[in-house]
Amino acid sequence: MSDHDLDAEDVYALDSGLVTSVQLALAVDDAARLTELFAPLHSADIADLFEQLDHGQRTALLLLAPHLIEGDVLSDMDEALREEIIGFLPKDVLSNAVRDLESDDVVDLVEDLDEVQQEAILDVLEDADRVAVEQSLAYPEESAGRLMQREVVWVPEDWTVGAAIDRLRAEDDLPEQFYHVVLVDPSMTPVGQVTLGRLMGSRREVLLKTITEETFQIIPATQPEDEVAYAFNQYHLISAPVVDEDERLVGVITIDDAMVVLDEEHEEDILRLAGVGEGSLADRVWQTTKRRFPWLAVNLVTAILASLVIAQFEDAIATLVALAVLMPIVASMGGNAGTQSLTVAVRAIATKDLTGSNVWRVIRREVLVGLVNGLGFAVLMGGVGWVWFGSFELAYVIAAAMVINLVVAGLAGTVIPVLLERMKIDPALASGAFVTTVTDVVGFFAFLGMAVVFIL
Amino acid sequence: MSDHDLDAEDVYALDSGLVTSVQLALAVDDAARLTELFAPLHSADIADLFEQLDHGQRTALLLLAPHLIEGDVLSDMDEALREEIIGFLPKDVLSNAVRDLESDDVVDLVEDLDEVQQEAILDVLEDADRVAVEQSLAYPEESAGRLMQREVVWVPEDWTVGAAIDRLRAEDDLPEQFYHVVLVDPSMTPVGQVTLGRLMGSRREVLLKTITEETFQIIPATQPEDEVAYAFNQYHLISAPVVDEDERLVGVITIDDAMVVLDEEHEEDILRLAGVGEGSLADRVWQTTKRRFPWLAVNLVTAILASLVIAQFEDAIATLVALAVLMPIVASMGGNAGTQSLTVAVRAIATKDLTGSNVWRVIRREVLVGLVNGLGFAVLMGGVGWVWFGSFELAYVIAAAMVINLVVAGLAGTVIPVLLERMKIDPALASGAFVTTVTDVVGFFAFLGMAVVFIL
Repeated sequence: MSDHDLDAEDVYALDSGLVTSVQLALAVDDAARLTELFAPLHSADIADLFEQLDHGQRTALLLLAPHLIEGDVLSDMDEALREEIIGFLPKDVLSNAVRDLESDDVVDLVEDLDEVQQEAILDVLEDADRVAVEQSLAYPEESAGRLMQREVVWVPEDWTVGAAIDRLRAEDDLPEQFYHVVLVDPSMTPVGQVTLGRLMGSRREVLLKTITEETFQIIPATQPEDEVAYAFNQYHLISAPVVDEDERLVGVITIDDAMVVLDEEHEEDILRLAGVGEGSLADRVWQTTKRRFPWLAVNLVTAILASLVIAQFEDAIATLVALAVLMPIVASMGGNAGTQSLTVAVRAIATKDLTGSNVWRVIRREVLVGLVNGLGFAVLMGGVGWVWFGSFELAYVIAAAMVINLVVAGLAGTVIPVLLERMKIDPALASGAFVTTVTDVVGFFAFLGMAVVFIL
Repeated sequence: MSDHDLDAEDVYALDSGLVTSVQLALAVDDAARLTELFAPLHSADIADLFEQLDHGQRTALLLLAPHLIEGDVLSDMDEALREEIIGFLPKDVLSNAVRDLESDDVVDLVEDLDEVQQEAILDVLEDADRVAVEQSLAYPEESAGRLMQREVVWVPEDWTVGAAIDRLRAEDDLPEQFYHVVLVDPSMTPVGQVTLGRLMGSRREVLLKTITEETFQIIPATQPEDEVAYAFNQYHLISAPVVDEDERLVGVITIDDAMVVLDEEHEEDILRLAGVGEGSLADRVWQTTKRRFPWLAVNLVTAILASLVIAQFEDAIATLVALAVLMPIVASMGGNAGTQSLTVAVRAIATKDLTGSNVWRVIRREVLVGLVNGLGFAVLMGGVGWVWFGSFELAYVIAAAMVINLVVAGLAGTVIPVLLERMKIDPALASGAFVTTVTDVVGFFAFLGMAVVFIL
């Protein structure tokens, strides 16, 4: 048995023994031991290690061994934590760290800082690098222009394989990572690209334009980065040229950058659906509290609205307390069914699968699913109500309320995200509150209202 | 203004005019028009187009123009839809489609089919391809062995740049996409890799082992694919060699495959958190209903448990109906706060940020966040209760219940996912039901119980 199989689940997790060793070294101020412990680690793992430490330990580490924070580590770090650390690092350490980074990584690093911190970092860069970073920063936030690297390998469109190979081999300063040679026309507009593998495998006299890759997407520098990530994922791109408003080649985006964006977008969607803002596990209590409070406040309003509905039926409840016992079941089932529908709708909107062409079909499907599940749970819950309270009327009222609320949940869970999207409001962020309000209000009103009409 | 800016949001969305055109062509059985409409489309867009059509339209399209379904289109299609279509395609169309695919795409295509369909596809492959596919299928489902492509470009570790370039240029049959040359020792174990760009940029006499990439990860063929995706994302890998149990090179995984897995894993997590199983927007009512029913059934049990708690306080509610009006607010706030905590915990577990080293710190933070938010909403809700019902006792009981339930929500929202993970149960799937049960039961019990003690 190979040692890879020992615990396949945790093969890439940070060794908790390592974290303990770091904590011990910190406790005795042993900088040499820290250097030794950090030496074999990848920058991404060092960044993760920082997130495992508490605020006091992080500060101790930065005071004791600031040189352990290299540029790559800052790049790989969670945004919130990164700002904390940049604010804390001595200027000379910071400049050393930043000087090693590629221009797109520097952009990623400085774009969220305040102006004073930004200036401090830009000041330590060499002139050429500083200009490159400043040009990227001129593009809108979260755009392709910010994401791209400016070093592109390109040749005129009418060159041969041999000419391109000779040019590449003569070049002193090829980018560290590149996968395509971009072909450009005389006005510098990209017209195709050839993979390095294809270039290597072709005879010298072959014209480059005859061996270009079939899939070729040009990305405008102003395109939002989530669209860029979508294009890479949808069309299986490896790299794509970026053009300015005159269609001239200004940079290239590679799949690894797109993958980072895709990962961040997903993370954001998950957290927004749960009413949690962006943030890090390393955030402190007060930051976290402030981020979660607004969503809970919205939910409080929702809950009070539902309570106002209940308050209309105080007499009915006083007469038949079983209503108070059973009513949360109807609301809760509606809320859950609504969350199912809205999650599917929000995802389908994000992946561009829910469009004007199929929106009515999807709404119809969700309503029918609500109806069928509603009928199923009506029978179940009607049975429970009848056995529990021995009242046939109570059983059919809760059964009917269940059907109504699950149908409404399917309808609201689809229509609300679609409407929010049309109104340019992020459906992942806002749908939950609206859908729950609808299912709570309808759930309580249908159940209590029918109880008044049919039982009391 | 460039035409890219017209509606940046929807630049990669399918044109709804196109969908309508296809539907019109279908309505008049115009196969030539369909061919014309499909011609400029990328396979991924054709796959999306299929998802936009309803079941009847898809069937009509397959009957009228089955040749439009190429192998790439099947690869890009949603799994559920793909099975429907493979079951429907005539055998000769299917074989043509499959024959054009790379071996890893064929594996992806056949692995979810039943044996009869699988055999049908394997039968049409050439011998060498069939063997490659069968060998991949011998690896566990969702493992690196299934994900890898078997064509690897490798050279002995002691070769020079010149020797490697000559070998590559002499090779007839280089893979379509490759980004590294893998160096292997005499027992075929990978020891490093050189990027093609670096190879192109180095002098002929340079030893390959002196220009290998710093970041180098070897993936065991049995490693689960979600771990593979994690490694690519964490270490910014572009491609990584895959080895068998004897550490011998058997294949290579590239970042585009890892990106697809990452995307699928995220999608699954989002849907599981909402209690929705995997599935497609193109699924029909009955399939969707069956997938959502179990989660709603779990929720019904949860809701009934909460109702049993309420039932213990029937006398109190009959005496003071305001309790019935206010009690859902406490439960709802707890449920939402719990969902916030559990979502953060589930994500942190997935990204390996929540570990044995920091679990206590995270739990403490969540409890404190619950306490602070609880105090805030206690003041708010106590105020509302006092204004609404004019009862000071009611106000402080609901305030106290709010604090208790939000603290419990923070605790349960973190501890439950961690425990489920330790018990090897997917926390994304199961946490929601448990956490809601806890917050509902505690919410109703704390509020109604304190009401009995302090008010009645």
